[in-house]
Amino acid sequence: MNSFGISFILSDYGGTHDSCIGGTIEGCPAGVNVDLEFVQSELARRAPSSHPNSTQRRESDRVVFLSGIENGITTGAPIQFQIPNEDVQPNLAMLHVIKPSHASYTYKMKYGITDNSGIGRASARQTACRVVAGAIAKLYLKKFGIEIRASHCTGVACNALLARNALLARNAPSGDTFGALVHGVITNLPAGLGEPVYNKFDARLAYAMLSINACKGFEIGKGFAAAKMKGSEYNDIQNPDFSFKSNNDGGVQAGITNGEDLYFSVAFKPIPTLQMEQSTIDFNGNPTTYVGSNRNDRCVSPRVLPVVEAMAALVTADFMLIGNY
Amino acid sequence: MNSFGISFILSDYGGTHDSCIGGTIEGCPAGVNVDLEFVQSELARRAPSSHPNSTQRRESDRVVFLSGIENGITTGAPIQFQIPNEDVQPNLAMLHVIKPSHASYTYKMKYGITDNSGIGRASARQTACRVVAGAIAKLYLKKFGIEIRASHCTGVACNALLARNALLARNAPSGDTFGALVHGVITNLPAGLGEPVYNKFDARLAYAMLSINACKGFEIGKGFAAAKMKGSEYNDIQNPDFSFKSNNDGGVQAGITNGEDLYFSVAFKPIPTLQMEQSTIDFNGNPTTYVGSNRNDRCVSPRVLPVVEAMAALVTADFMLIGNY
Amino acid sequence: MNSFGISFILSDYGGTHDSCIGGTIEGCPAGVNVDLEFVQSELARRAPSSHPNSTQRRESDRVVFLSGIENGITTGAPIQFQIPNEDVQPNLAMLHVIKPSHASYTYKMKYGITDNSGIGRASARQTACRVVAGAIAKLYLKKFGIEIRASHCTGVACNALLARNALLARNAPSGDTFGALVHGVITNLPAGLGEPVYNKFDARLAYAMLSINACKGFEIGKGFAAAKMKGSEYNDIQNPDFSFKSNNDGGVQAGITNGEDLYFSVAFKPIPTLQMEQSTIDFNGNPTTYVGSNRNDRCVSPRVLPVVEAMAALVTADFMLIGNY
Amino acid sequence: MNSFGISFILSDYGGTHDSCIGGTIEGCPAGVNVDLEFVQSELARRAPSSHPNSTQRRESDRVVFLSGIENGITTGAPIQFQIPNEDVQPNLAMLHVIKPSHASYTYKMKYGITDNSGIGRASARQTACRVVAGAIAKLYLKKFGIEIRASHCTGVACNALLARNALLARNAPSGDTFGALVHGVITNLPAGLGEPVYNKFDARLAYAMLSINACKGFEIGKGFAAAKMKGSEYNDIQNPDFSFKSNNDGGVQAGITNGEDLYFSVAFKPIPTLQMEQSTIDFNGNPTTYVGSNRNDRCVSPRVLPVVEAMAALVTADFMLIGNY
Repeated sequence: MNSFGISFILSDYGGTHDSCIGGTIEGCPAGVNVDLEFVQSELARRAPSSHPNSTQRRESDRVVFLSGIENGITTGAPIQFQIPNEDVQPNLAMLHVIKPSHASYTYKMKYGITDNSGIGRASARQTACRVVAGAIAKLYLKKFGIEIRASHCTGVACNALLARNALLARNAPSGDTFGALVHGVITNLPAGLGEPVYNKFDARLAYAMLSINACKGFEIGKGFAAAKMKGSEYNDIQNPDFSFKSNNDGGVQAGITNGEDLYFSVAFKPIPTLQMEQSTIDFNGNPTTYVGSNRNDRCVSPRVLPVVEAMAALVTADFMLIGNY
Repeated sequence: MNSFGISFILSDYGGTHDSCIGGTIEGCPAGVNVDLEFVQSELARRAPSSHPNSTQRRESDRVVFLSGIENGITTGAPIQFQIPNEDVQPNLAMLHVIKPSHASYTYKMKYGITDNSGIGRASARQTACRVVAGAIAKLYLKKFGIEIRASHCTGVACNALLARNALLARNAPSGDTFGALVHGVITNLPAGLGEPVYNKFDARLAYAMLSINACKGFEIGKGFAAAKMKGSEYNDIQNPDFSFKSNNDGGVQAGITNGEDLYFSVAFKPIPTLQMEQSTIDFNGNPTTYVGSNRNDRCVSPRVLPVVEAMAALVTADFMLIGNY
Repeated sequence: MNSFGISFILSDYGGTHDSCIGGTIEGCPAGVNVDLEFVQSELARRAPSSHPNSTQRRESDRVVFLSGIENGITTGAPIQFQIPNEDVQPNLAMLHVIKPSHASYTYKMKYGITDNSGIGRASARQTACRVVAGAIAKLYLKKFGIEIRASHCTGVACNALLARNALLARNAPSGDTFGALVHGVITNLPAGLGEPVYNKFDARLAYAMLSINACKGFEIGKGFAAAKMKGSEYNDIQNPDFSFKSNNDGGVQAGITNGEDLYFSVAFKPIPTLQMEQSTIDFNGNPTTYVGSNRNDRCVSPRVLPVVEAMAALVTADFMLIGNY
Repeated sequence: MNSFGISFILSDYGGTHDSCIGGTIEGCPAGVNVDLEFVQSELARRAPSSHPNSTQRRESDRVVFLSGIENGITTGAPIQFQIPNEDVQPNLAMLHVIKPSHASYTYKMKYGITDNSGIGRASARQTACRVVAGAIAKLYLKKFGIEIRASHCTGVACNALLARNALLARNAPSGDTFGALVHGVITNLPAGLGEPVYNKFDARLAYAMLSINACKGFEIGKGFAAAKMKGSEYNDIQNPDFSFKSNNDGGVQAGITNGEDLYFSVAFKPIPTLQMEQSTIDFNGNPTTYVGSNRNDRCVSPRVLPVVEAMAALVTADFMLIGNY
């Protein structure tokens, strides 16, 4: 229940308020060059920063590898890693307040907890483990030329959203938060990855993306727009050299990659913790208010981008191994 | 690779051109009343019909249960079922033609096949197995009052799509196909189902939906619209009796159900096989044309609705068992 | 819970008193020649026979393959098979009697059953499914020259047992049963199969053997005799060409095959159902007697031999696939 | 491949020559009191000691728990633990020598290694992780009164072995090693644990035991002696109060516990590393000799006893959870 993957498997542990978080990567082949600076730079992309959207919480996020790597090269044994938690400051004043649209209430209903200290595994801090494993997966995929990149919504199609969000940022009472639309692309994928029935490449990718905190939607290729199209305008026709005239399917047909760029979008809801007062109740049902500290982000982006890439890398590495690459 | 589920598991076999298809349901508790008429009526909803969008292929789709049910009640042993294939007419003329946006090319790249006869597992016929297992899951869930319903897009928000699709149907050259937007809702779900990290309820649901043929997108609650919202307008605030003032999250928070209705949408691309001529190539790369027979549907809906419900039922039954219901 | 294997997986269903039994083989590579006569001959080895130890129950045991094989060659899709049950005669007189050292009491305690009709999955009839899957595994292994053979205890070391059993057979009141010691050998195994920690080759083999009805013990190489040896007499020393001077380890060192013959022994208890009266109780605890019919064997051997081979073949095929053969 | 268990799962990492070893325990229910002194005392039983059979390697074996335990009580989140390696002294002189009946050659054939430094996962040091997880499992089982105890072979039946081993110890050239026979018993087990087909309680127990380094055999109840018995003398008959008149089955019938004591035996071969010269070859096939240091044990017992208990505890905890205890 704390693992993701079939052949390339991340299992992780720890929450915000433990002394460290960490995990195990199972199934990574021997012989991958582990560029530690690259792994660390991926973590830095996820780390809180001076960006105005970002939490003021400070973590140096230094990852330590305890096994599975010798002389900078993977040995095939399980790779164990650990990241210390350095800046633990539980928000004691808000400990018994149900955070709206957050994990407080569902944790209460599932585990019977009566304060917020027990919800560490649901914290976004957990995603640092995903980034470490994703970085290892990227280094493995690099051997095949495969690259993965997530970006903010910036194309023409996103103008309305960007305009609105700029407006939100300008007009919002100080402390409001907003959602994000993220685009991902995987390039240089070989054709033939993915399984035809349940473990379709895009099904596993959807699973991976929706497992990220605050994610509410996933689409591949034309996605929701495809629902409004005719077959005669949608279908991706091939040339005699097997190349494609279009890529509406986003690189996956019948669950299997066709060698075109795989592109997808992911929708994130606004960060639920506002740095402004919200009405809510406490764990006993008494009306109260909740206000987040400046240790909370205002938007999942840009910190979520390496997390999206990491999950896409884990799915891709999984299918490469299943395909015996 | 031919299975779905963690505790309530469907494994299935067979394709369009085998003598039968069928499967095993593992993990269904003993004591579930199996209303065979209900199971059969679910299959009838998926079966080709007189609906103008529907294939002219005819299958009586009579399911036979071979084990795991005694006197109409599940015993706890694996439930084995089988559906004969009765109307097998491979389209021989098109055997070596790559069907655009279909499984032909990706199967060629994955398995090295050189004609369409080997892609039976990728056929929509396989979804009949999902419907049988989903019907058993629904009967199990019925004991707890849980109901699942999928419907065509019919709300105000869908008017534009409906209008456009009606227009498509009217103006399309005879034989074109179109996409579909399907809404699903699960009611009377207990709070507390789902796991907080990777096996979030909505992550497994996304996985389930994207595993359905032709699916290109999934969203829960406000979904992609959430990306354009502010936290202060999005968050679902609770009353002192723990009820919710709104349900923008669609019944899942931090991956765990909160007791509200779980609602989601699924986007399907147009059926790739048109009953009109399309340019394409054959398996050797020679230019040719492809035209489907009247054995192909013009839209996945309405036949996909029981499939969407079945996959949602499998996910829900899985989490009920994991939660020891 | 009804499956065995990691990469080459058998899942099966059905019991003695269902209309059929059957199963799915997942993971068998495409391209294996399925010699149906061989499969059928393996079933014949397991079938009741004219051997005086054998039950008088008669089953023709005709296996039917429903998918996964085309023109006699595996396609890589799941292989589905089915064996009709033809000679169903439940022993009604003994339905409520607890069979000593059998499944009656433990099924009562686990499932709450109150008669013997519900214990079909625990019946030795289930092993026919193992034999079918084992036969497919053997055909796959044949491509690599690997052979598997189980035999009655016949070597010098077994004389005492044989003598005693002959004595038993001669002196036993008509209807008594006796145990069996079976030796197995796997030849032409490549070195390097098996995993070093939990999934040792011999650990999986022990798991496989103990899963066979009535099995009470497993040993590999010198086995229990090794407990009485010194290291200086036990260790298998290698020659400069890497060949071994001895094979006390039975072909597995540190859980991994070394290329020598893998040999092992399996102990079976006496068949619990005697064709003579035994004191027992019924499901309510009332004293009564139990006597089996002539439909029960007097010794698991020789019918168990193809089952032992089948389970060894499943384990071997599993490790061949894990090793990317 | 580095995990054991279905519901109560240990995954571990690290070898003799890493900076630490450690692992994750998944599935341990919330609310178990973790008596740290008990966990440490279990490790002490496995640790090298002043016993004359024992290695002179010194490890303080202090386990640190990093997550999953708060205020001494399990939270239900994954339990992460770590044990530093303190006394790392690779035997450089013997680095390129194939250790007879050890992992050297099979690692070479599986992984292509050319010296002994890469076989850390096959080292008995790994079993410290099993002991930690087993200690947690024991604490969980304690709530139900279940106890597990392994002991040297000491009964009447073992006299011959003991006499022989005493003789070995007396007469052996200084540095020889010897095998061991270990008896295990699980008391206060509820009836009804175990699955009827592949995941029989005793099948999982055999799997667990054979996964321990140097194990060559497993038997339950009468085990190999059962092969020589008649059904009329073997069968365990029940009294009207359902108690048993005998326990030849060792507490498991048809793979399911019957409430009697579960007893079993495990055979271990002599420790392959002798503190005396053995003929062997190096990784290139050149004849040479191998001699172990005083850092190697002379017999797996008594240090293996807590390992046997730990594996039995993991299997038992697994079935308790599967049975919803």
